[in-house]
Amino acid sequence: MKQQILVDMDGVLADTYTQHITYQYEESGIKLEKCDLEGDSEDVIFPAYFKHVNSEGFFRTVPLIADSVEGLAYLNDKYDVLVVSSATEYPTSMNDKHFWLRTHFPYITWEQMIFCGRKDSIKGDIMIDDHLKNLSKFSGRKMLFHQPHNIKYNQYERVHNWKEIMNIL
Amino acid sequence: MKQQILVDMDGVLADTYTQHITYQYEESGIKLEKCDLEGDSEDVIFPAYFKHVNSEGFFRTVPLIADSVEGLAYLNDKYDVLVVSSATEYPTSMNDKHFWLRTHFPYITWEQMIFCGRKDSIKGDIMIDDHLKNLSKFSGRKMLFHQPHNIKYNQYERVHNWKEIMNIL
Repeated sequence: MKQQILVDMDGVLADTYTQHITYQYEESGIKLEKCDLEGDSEDVIFPAYFKHVNSEGFFRTVPLIADSVEGLAYLNDKYDVLVVSSATEYPTSMNDKHFWLRTHFPYITWEQMIFCGRKDSIKGDIMIDDHLKNLSKFSGRKMLFHQPHNIKYNQYERVHNWKEIMNIL
Repeated sequence: MKQQILVDMDGVLADTYTQHITYQYEESGIKLEKCDLEGDSEDVIFPAYFKHVNSEGFFRTVPLIADSVEGLAYLNDKYDVLVVSSATEYPTSMNDKHFWLRTHFPYITWEQMIFCGRKDSIKGDIMIDDHLKNLSKFSGRKMLFHQPHNIKYNQYERVHNWKEIMNIL
C-alpha cells in the first residue's frame, strides 16, 4: 500500500510571493524582491495581503513554483497524493484554486483535492507544507518547504525546492 | 476533549432533492414528489442532475433540511463539528457552498469547513452522511441520514431527521 502524502498549494505548488509582488507593483509601483522578504509573514510584508487573497482571480493566475508540475507528477506515481489547501478562510478562492489545479496539474483528480481551514483532521504519512502551524499538528513525517517567511525555523526537515523533494522521496 | 463529528452538507443540511425538483419543474414542467423517488440515486432520478450541480447558484440557493440550523448549533456546542462536503467533483460549487454555510450557519467558522472529493482521509469519531460510500470507509460511529436514495440499506444506524439526531447525540 502506498504512503499518503499531503501536499500544500500556496508556497509549495503556487508561487504566491511572486503573485503578491506583482499585485503590489501594479497597485503601488513598489517592486519588492523575494530575497528581501526573509523572516516576516506574508500578511506583514504585503500591506494589501488580505485584499489580494480575497480578490477573485488572485489564485487563478498565480505562477507555478519551479519544477512543481514535474515534482508532483513524480510523487503522484509513487505515493497516494492529496493536495490539501487552506482555502476556506478566503471565501472566493476555492473555485479559482480548483481551476488552477485542473489547468496545471491535470493528472490530479478531484478526488485528490481538499480545500479546508485547519489541516489537523487530514490523515497522511508525509506532509509537505511551508507553514509551521500545519506541520506542528501533523503526526507523520513533516517536510518544511523553504519560503522567506519560514527561514528562521529549524525544527523540521527543510526542503528547498522540488528537485530536492524528488531526490529525497 | 470533545468528540469530533463530521457532518455532511448535501442531503443532511441542504435539501438538494427539493432543489433538483424545483430546477426540473422550471425546465420541463414536470413536478416530481419526494415520496415517489425512493430507491434510485439522484443522478438517475433527475435527468439533468449533472447540469444542475454544475450550475453556479444551485448550491447557493438550496433550501435547508428541516431543523438543521438548530440541530447543528446543538452539535456545535457539544462536539467538535466539521462540515465535510464532497464538492470538488463540481468545480464551481465550492464558493456557493461556502456562501450558503456562512448565510445559514454563521456559527460555523471557516476552520470548520472541508470541501473535498473522497472523505476517507478525514479524521472523526462520528459521521452523519446520507451516502453509504462515505460511511463505509469511516472507522467511527456511522449515522445514515434518511433520504429517498438510501431507503433500502440497513447496515448503518439510520437517523430520520434533525430532531432525532438531537435526541440521540
